[in-house]
Amino acid sequence: MEQENETRMEEDELFEKIKSGEVSLRKIEKYTDANTAVKLRRQAVEEMSDISFKNIQNHNIDAEEVARKNIENMIGAVQIPLGVAGPLKVNGEYADGDYHIPLATTEGALVASINRGCSVITRSDGANVRIFQDVMTRAPAFKVENVARAQEFVEWIKKPDTIKHMQDKISDITSHGELVDVDPYVLGNTVYLRFSYDTKDAMGMNMVTIATNTLVDLIEDEFGADPISLSGNMCTDKKPAAINSIQGRGKTVVAETEIPKKVIEDRLKSTPEEMAEVNYRKNLLGSARAGSLGYNAHAANVIAAMNIACGQDTAHVVEGSNTITTMEVTKYGDLYCSVTLPSLLVGTVGGGTGIGTQKDCLDLLGVAGSGHPPGSNAKKLAEIIASSVLAGEISLIGAQAAGHLARAHAELGRGGF
Amino acid sequence: MEQENETRMEEDELFEKIKSGEVSLRKIEKYTDANTAVKLRRQAVEEMSDISFKNIQNHNIDAEEVARKNIENMIGAVQIPLGVAGPLKVNGEYADGDYHIPLATTEGALVASINRGCSVITRSDGANVRIFQDVMTRAPAFKVENVARAQEFVEWIKKPDTIKHMQDKISDITSHGELVDVDPYVLGNTVYLRFSYDTKDAMGMNMVTIATNTLVDLIEDEFGADPISLSGNMCTDKKPAAINSIQGRGKTVVAETEIPKKVIEDRLKSTPEEMAEVNYRKNLLGSARAGSLGYNAHAANVIAAMNIACGQDTAHVVEGSNTITTMEVTKYGDLYCSVTLPSLLVGTVGGGTGIGTQKDCLDLLGVAGSGHPPGSNAKKLAEIIASSVLAGEISLIGAQAAGHLARAHAELGRGGF
Amino acid sequence: MEQENETRMEEDELFEKIKSGEVSLRKIEKYTDANTAVKLRRQAVEEMSDISFKNIQNHNIDAEEVARKNIENMIGAVQIPLGVAGPLKVNGEYADGDYHIPLATTEGALVASINRGCSVITRSDGANVRIFQDVMTRAPAFKVENVARAQEFVEWIKKPDTIKHMQDKISDITSHGELVDVDPYVLGNTVYLRFSYDTKDAMGMNMVTIATNTLVDLIEDEFGADPISLSGNMCTDKKPAAINSIQGRGKTVVAETEIPKKVIEDRLKSTPEEMAEVNYRKNLLGSARAGSLGYNAHAANVIAAMNIACGQDTAHVVEGSNTITTMEVTKYGDLYCSVTLPSLLVGTVGGGTGIGTQKDCLDLLGVAGSGHPPGSNAKKLAEIIASSVLAGEISLIGAQAAGHLARAHAELGRGGF
Amino acid sequence: MEQENETRMEEDELFEKIKSGEVSLRKIEKYTDANTAVKLRRQAVEEMSDISFKNIQNHNIDAEEVARKNIENMIGAVQIPLGVAGPLKVNGEYADGDYHIPLATTEGALVASINRGCSVITRSDGANVRIFQDVMTRAPAFKVENVARAQEFVEWIKKPDTIKHMQDKISDITSHGELVDVDPYVLGNTVYLRFSYDTKDAMGMNMVTIATNTLVDLIEDEFGADPISLSGNMCTDKKPAAINSIQGRGKTVVAETEIPKKVIEDRLKSTPEEMAEVNYRKNLLGSARAGSLGYNAHAANVIAAMNIACGQDTAHVVEGSNTITTMEVTKYGDLYCSVTLPSLLVGTVGGGTGIGTQKDCLDLLGVAGSGHPPGSNAKKLAEIIASSVLAGEISLIGAQAAGHLARAHAELGRGGF
Repeated sequence: MEQENETRMEEDELFEKIKSGEVSLRKIEKYTDANTAVKLRRQAVEEMSDISFKNIQNHNIDAEEVARKNIENMIGAVQIPLGVAGPLKVNGEYADGDYHIPLATTEGALVASINRGCSVITRSDGANVRIFQDVMTRAPAFKVENVARAQEFVEWIKKPDTIKHMQDKISDITSHGELVDVDPYVLGNTVYLRFSYDTKDAMGMNMVTIATNTLVDLIEDEFGADPISLSGNMCTDKKPAAINSIQGRGKTVVAETEIPKKVIEDRLKSTPEEMAEVNYRKNLLGSARAGSLGYNAHAANVIAAMNIACGQDTAHVVEGSNTITTMEVTKYGDLYCSVTLPSLLVGTVGGGTGIGTQKDCLDLLGVAGSGHPPGSNAKKLAEIIASSVLAGEISLIGAQAAGHLARAHAELGRGGF
Repeated sequence: MEQENETRMEEDELFEKIKSGEVSLRKIEKYTDANTAVKLRRQAVEEMSDISFKNIQNHNIDAEEVARKNIENMIGAVQIPLGVAGPLKVNGEYADGDYHIPLATTEGALVASINRGCSVITRSDGANVRIFQDVMTRAPAFKVENVARAQEFVEWIKKPDTIKHMQDKISDITSHGELVDVDPYVLGNTVYLRFSYDTKDAMGMNMVTIATNTLVDLIEDEFGADPISLSGNMCTDKKPAAINSIQGRGKTVVAETEIPKKVIEDRLKSTPEEMAEVNYRKNLLGSARAGSLGYNAHAANVIAAMNIACGQDTAHVVEGSNTITTMEVTKYGDLYCSVTLPSLLVGTVGGGTGIGTQKDCLDLLGVAGSGHPPGSNAKKLAEIIASSVLAGEISLIGAQAAGHLARAHAELGRGGF
Repeated sequence: MEQENETRMEEDELFEKIKSGEVSLRKIEKYTDANTAVKLRRQAVEEMSDISFKNIQNHNIDAEEVARKNIENMIGAVQIPLGVAGPLKVNGEYADGDYHIPLATTEGALVASINRGCSVITRSDGANVRIFQDVMTRAPAFKVENVARAQEFVEWIKKPDTIKHMQDKISDITSHGELVDVDPYVLGNTVYLRFSYDTKDAMGMNMVTIATNTLVDLIEDEFGADPISLSGNMCTDKKPAAINSIQGRGKTVVAETEIPKKVIEDRLKSTPEEMAEVNYRKNLLGSARAGSLGYNAHAANVIAAMNIACGQDTAHVVEGSNTITTMEVTKYGDLYCSVTLPSLLVGTVGGGTGIGTQKDCLDLLGVAGSGHPPGSNAKKLAEIIASSVLAGEISLIGAQAAGHLARAHAELGRGGF
Repeated sequence: MEQENETRMEEDELFEKIKSGEVSLRKIEKYTDANTAVKLRRQAVEEMSDISFKNIQNHNIDAEEVARKNIENMIGAVQIPLGVAGPLKVNGEYADGDYHIPLATTEGALVASINRGCSVITRSDGANVRIFQDVMTRAPAFKVENVARAQEFVEWIKKPDTIKHMQDKISDITSHGELVDVDPYVLGNTVYLRFSYDTKDAMGMNMVTIATNTLVDLIEDEFGADPISLSGNMCTDKKPAAINSIQGRGKTVVAETEIPKKVIEDRLKSTPEEMAEVNYRKNLLGSARAGSLGYNAHAANVIAAMNIACGQDTAHVVEGSNTITTMEVTKYGDLYCSVTLPSLLVGTVGGGTGIGTQKDCLDLLGVAGSGHPPGSNAKKLAEIIASSVLAGEISLIGAQAAGHLARAHAELGRGGF
């Protein structure tokens, strides 16, 4: 009892100091345990802002745990409704079976739409999916004296000896990642080195940042170029950059399915011809006319909802929005559909993957933690996400085709082609 | 008691039917209340997937409420840790004061970094911020017989009478939005009409979709063009498109601050010159070399964390990633910093803004619900987000400048400029 | 005779002074007539470089004439072989008839290819072509104190009074052009004003530069913004910019034709299906995957060859390369083909249009000089160029389809879609 | 005499047949020599169009020669005024000395402007220039059954054995070029292979087209993928594509110079600070805001004028317009200027390089024909063009800085930074 009283006293004292500004919001953890700190900070913010939080305190996240890895200045948690779509049949190299897709979103109709797409794919024998590249990139910027020096730099960095030397350095500091390659890009007196790593089951941002930091030091010491920034934006992280859509970042994944005409008629109330036309005029021509780097209907929606559910970095939806969707009537009158995701960034260890609700979602897909062999869980997750994006595209294009082309054709008798 | 027993019986029976497939996952709500449906669906998914959810059931979301507006096939909720940064002084037209910024993220160090940026801005007399445009867009695609007909279509749509007629039509069906303008774009025999609306405090996607659907019908009836798709991708929604970064979508916002040299030295351990150089070689030159439509360090991070916290559509981080960041040494030796967000999509009504934890976050900013006058809350939120993006940019560029330029200058004596 | 001797003496003396550096190459015209200056400069360059020009002296350009308008430091002329394609049947609003297309090029097979395309179009009842926009742009950059001031600037510039005032100013200084509109774009503390002008039969670069210079002075005087550059690159002149492909610059033109299946089989040895597939996988998908702002096969070739022939600014081939080409099988089994040129910059007065050989080419098309009404000749030229681009696309896509698809289909029996 | 009469008779007869349509314009060479054919065709076009050519017949091009390589349906030649700029001091690996730059243009003030830039560079100890990559690309498109097959294709093409086999095949058919590498890109069921070749002194378009055709046949035979198009637009030829600006095409060249403050004041009437600011707000920020792939003032102007003069393919100005220009005040108060041309396509053999006037221009630069070693002449030409682009940028940015910043600063006392 006394103990408890004393503790309360301490809390009270600390709270007063927080309110007075003697202890800043970001230093509360220095004076108490993490869970108490969260509470006191939340209460302090309430007083400062003259509001009363009614919901964010409701969570079962262990503040001690996430404070070390995921968040600072924690005051509670946000709850995102979680829905499920599927089953979705996936025929990948890593994902092979029927999956229920976890989707965390507040956009009404999204889960229903993806669910419909899953149903169509599953009835079409599933989504074939393959990963064509898997590297995480980080591109520091260096300044050199002049172009002659830039040329020496590029020649030095491309030497087999230099690359081997850097690879050895990386294998000394981590067993979880490998340096795969480096591509130099010159712009006047600035040289960008785009390093590519295999980061196994981790999305890898932290790993490649630490590894690249080591390489920047090595380069500064051994070659003598001036490091300007650990990231020179040619990585390119969380910006809509053509280098990612062309050269890839993270996983480069393609998923496809061939939907029988009958399934389209029954399930989507449309036809292969109508859907191919909508995809053509909307996803291809419309995107081209808009100067877009993404040629899809709503890949970002699916990636965002799965990223939130599965503890991924939500801002990586930017890279995912580069997706290109195709729909083509086959010679048999069916519909070939594909999505190409040049830069899908996911991991099953690190980031938010260890938080309870997120781990539940990864468990649902059978991809929590490290895979056997390493990297296989992240690849499996990528295959499932790409297949889900395909489901989202099929459903939305189907809806748009049914809604308008159908009416036009029925009522007005105007011909499509 | 009996009642309860009977209820349990019913649940058992329904659960068996769900497992047997007689009742599909998406139709459970037809046979029971929403909260029970969520539970049964979750349990069914557990059995089907042979897993056991440990966390997603922990939430205080009212399934009845969200099932109508935000989610289908609900099985629980995902919890995202919520941190707070600030206070951040904002000098806007709608946001004018010091704010604590809610950030939902699982990326360690992000909140701390933004917090540091807030501190720097606040010590620099705050962020000045202005909104330059505020329209939500939707662009249906039509097919016409030939270019002569396309020309007639464009001439017709641009007539003052036509626009007035369409505006009247919209004001008939909603009092929450207004048709502002329409821009036609032709590509061969396809014509895209990019409609712009004022959607007040709503982000407006649903509103403009419904309104545009009405206009598509009107156009089909009165002019006779073939509607192909309600969205022709020139809107452009959730894709990285130049049309948004040039012409704007949602709010076009600019935030700026001028940081005294002393504040940079004390708080960021860097100098205005170093930060300007990092911003120049990374955010401008590096982005240019990478073929990027975004010229910033990590605007997407801040927008994603605030969007999740505040019940926004997370996939709209794509449009937000178009941000351009500038940093310039002033004639007084201080640092002028700005962020230009051409396409920031936010709302304070609709979407996920009504869910408990999200409403808590909006309350923290004083922007929950409709503003007085209508639209002012969403504008205030936009001003605060843009200022927070500025905080994130300042902190990260400062860190990169301190980390590497500092070492280079101290140890090697090489000159920057 | 004496006179002639003395003249020779003077030439000799001048030549010595040129060689000694006393008279620089760019000042020779000060001491003699233009034609002599050209000769002396050529000879001086020959001596300095220790070479002997054998061909550049062969021309019938009047140095006196071009020295005032087209060239400085003239030493002769370059000859480009001129071929002719056609007749090409054009069904435009300004060009209506059969035209022989002048093409100046050194790329073998280009004229033959375009000629084949002309033949196909002419047999298909010609190219329908329409102009959707016709404005020349120039976008100066201004610096302002802060975003609040930027907002005032934007509000001021958009006032009807301000625009009217600027229009009056322009009509005072020229009767050949009109200010049509102005679009402001803000980026931090920089404000770009994209002015749009109607420049009638002139391409208009010079006119809009002079007019904009006047407006920049007016703005500086009356509003007080700091002019930074007369062109702030949002014009955008001769750079591959999305703003041109989306918003247009110069003429926005669409040309189309519907080619009967029989004509494709007879003349192109292909089928509508094969050509549509090549266009789809090459011009649309391939361009998308390459991060391109142009979706065509070789629009730049046709525009370059016609620009050289017709005295246009050759560097404007950059804007022309934005072209989007579509090919679609119609419900009747024929092939609909279109080219959309968002930014085609041409004129029939000014620039190189007055030089002899170029005037011959304009005469061939019936577009030399000012049209009646003003602007109609430049529009006619634009319609013919767009139709010629269409011819080039049809021919090249036909060739690629015949070459490979044909073989694939014949030998291997593999299906297309 | 009789002979001559008979010849005239024959000409008359042929002319009648041309006019009647019995002999088409493109087949005249079958019935007479090339020079007569040119004359008859010209006369026929005159009659058909009811015009009279006054100038295009004035040339000394040997029709026999160009008909084989450069033009079809020839009717004469176009004359472009040729000016000279310089001397320009170039410090390259291949070009090392002072050069007079040949420029064919009809745009008044262009030569004078470049000349001024040359003078500034030469007074600043010249332009340092280096080539970072030199490969010509061609990217055919193939269709495969499904993504699993695409994966096999990519794995097969990347095998060392496959590449060696293809390299051997190419070395069998040509001694002028070498296959360097191949990069596969997948999009759904389409696979693009971007082949890179070393084409020595040739620009190489024809060479790589022929070589790639051979490889397409090889791939079809040995792997079994369906060739769709010899060029799948990922090459990317003559379109404004990010793949070229990022990965390079042709020569990737950087030229730079450091201009003493005094030279800028004396020659450009500006200051390093003003020029750096104009470059920053115009070439970097303005281009970014416009969604541009090129960040320069007028690189296309210089490349177009030199391409025409030197017998290059003029349409390749499109790739050249990708140039990025930087200007930075050094710690000594001087101005560092650079231009980075990711994709400069030039050759000194083939194309228009053999025509008389063009050969004169190549002779002026000392780069006509094959170099020793092979490739060195084309590289030398590329270094000179890049240095000339630098001259153009310096001059134009200097002019814009002097024109407006100067006035602003002088009259209004407003500070720049």
